[in-house]
Amino acid sequence: MSLIVVGSVAYDAVETPHGRIDRMLGGACTYISLAASYYTKVGIVAVVGEDFAQADVDLLASRAIDLEGLERAPGKTFFWSGKYSDDMNDRETLQTDLNVFADFQPKLPASYRAESYLLLGNIQPDLQRAVRDQMTNPRLVGGDTMNYWIDGSRAALLETLKGWDFLLINDSEARSLSGESNLKRAARKILDMGPSTLVVKRGEYGAMLFRGDSYFVVPGYLLEEVFDPTGAGDCFAGGFVGYLAQCGFDLRDPNLDPKILHRAVIHGSVMGSFCCEKFGVDRFRTLTRAEIDGRFEEFRRFTEF
Amino acid sequence: MSLIVVGSVAYDAVETPHGRIDRMLGGACTYISLAASYYTKVGIVAVVGEDFAQADVDLLASRAIDLEGLERAPGKTFFWSGKYSDDMNDRETLQTDLNVFADFQPKLPASYRAESYLLLGNIQPDLQRAVRDQMTNPRLVGGDTMNYWIDGSRAALLETLKGWDFLLINDSEARSLSGESNLKRAARKILDMGPSTLVVKRGEYGAMLFRGDSYFVVPGYLLEEVFDPTGAGDCFAGGFVGYLAQCGFDLRDPNLDPKILHRAVIHGSVMGSFCCEKFGVDRFRTLTRAEIDGRFEEFRRFTEF
Repeated sequence: MSLIVVGSVAYDAVETPHGRIDRMLGGACTYISLAASYYTKVGIVAVVGEDFAQADVDLLASRAIDLEGLERAPGKTFFWSGKYSDDMNDRETLQTDLNVFADFQPKLPASYRAESYLLLGNIQPDLQRAVRDQMTNPRLVGGDTMNYWIDGSRAALLETLKGWDFLLINDSEARSLSGESNLKRAARKILDMGPSTLVVKRGEYGAMLFRGDSYFVVPGYLLEEVFDPTGAGDCFAGGFVGYLAQCGFDLRDPNLDPKILHRAVIHGSVMGSFCCEKFGVDRFRTLTRAEIDGRFEEFRRFTEF
Repeated sequence: MSLIVVGSVAYDAVETPHGRIDRMLGGACTYISLAASYYTKVGIVAVVGEDFAQADVDLLASRAIDLEGLERAPGKTFFWSGKYSDDMNDRETLQTDLNVFADFQPKLPASYRAESYLLLGNIQPDLQRAVRDQMTNPRLVGGDTMNYWIDGSRAALLETLKGWDFLLINDSEARSLSGESNLKRAARKILDMGPSTLVVKRGEYGAMLFRGDSYFVVPGYLLEEVFDPTGAGDCFAGGFVGYLAQCGFDLRDPNLDPKILHRAVIHGSVMGSFCCEKFGVDRFRTLTRAEIDGRFEEFRRFTEF
């Protein structure tokens, strides 16, 4: 069953202690769909400018990603540049040019509307809700947000969250959305906002999943070299929901097996870890499903007791 | 088989966002031995002053801790005071009065020397080595250290580490001991210094164990309230080595089951988490082995996939 992904497709300039790239393919929708493409058929909804390179279209197409919803508008593609700190736990945004993304009004192609899985990347919450309303009867809807919307568009975000099955954010976002510094209490408040499942990403420290009174926690994968963490959170989202789509998972099924959700968190962690091994999306040029399954088994080995 | 614990027994003054205590029982040896006492017979080697209260002796004795090696010297007991930040991830030392601890020359009572397990709390590395040399043929020797010794007594520490089976430190100590910011590379360098096993404590983010080419990682327990993190790292050490002693574990056994080491890390995490639930050692006044085993099973539930 197919996954529809909505969000930014961008060009990024990134500097890490390992080097500097002046222009590379980026954007949440790009990372999410590349990661998810290893698990399920993916269709994207995004906008790019006239400068969007054929080689980048070809990369997405090489992963069999449906590009019918990739709109091309007059002007330039969204551009972001940032610089990471020496330990790569912090980054500074140097430049953000929204360009064609400023007027993005996501429209689902008719062929997407009956699909079962919808992942809404981090865009303005009213737009996220409008996309969800274009789907006929999705089995699983969820997405990401950021402090900019939590602080500046709180009412719209809360309205949007009522229609989501899962929310996927990082720990600082969970704290500001809930107003609780303790993550267990923060999760309880967020689960009262609508989503039945909350996934909290903690960067190098791993991830947590909360659902009802139960929770699941996994540590981060120990990489020997982090080349570029850009996109790791989005790849996590892609692996998480991609795996659920592969399983035909229905969060509203009263008999669902929670272990499938736990394994989805592991697949998210696996994809996030691969993302950091090269600059930008480069790791996805060679990554195979066998490598993914191998790392999943490695997670099992280093967490079993 | 009995565990011998060497280190400080102290009085602490602590301020956390939950309150302030002007004088409470503390010290690495105290926390380690209380935690380990749930798993094995413990004997301690430490020094206290004339002000050491009978109630505190009674607490240790109530856990069947052998106090033959608890020396009482003229003067006052080691005193430390500190204040935690609002998120409790940082603490500031306000006062350190070594008092009788300044001249501590740990001597093992004759009845301790043939015991099998030795845990050396964080004291000057030459003293740690001298204690180890008083044991006849211990099955398992290890301990803790801190940046003060890593930076200031490096040669002595490296000599001491050659005689240890395991080292138990936190992530910033692992980075400064190895000179490597990446923990996987840091671990490889430290394992070349002598110990065959390295445990790295990461506070709220859990712990890692490295041994040969394999490793084990566990996330931290999600507490809803952290009252006072003082002693949590020492309780981790006590749970870790206490469980190994309970199992009669021999790190040098060529056929050892590495899962026992993983479970020891879980028991360390369990004891560290209980420690944070009340001020100082208060949680150990009521804690039962059934609660410990219950939390161990909880770790299994929230990490299984």
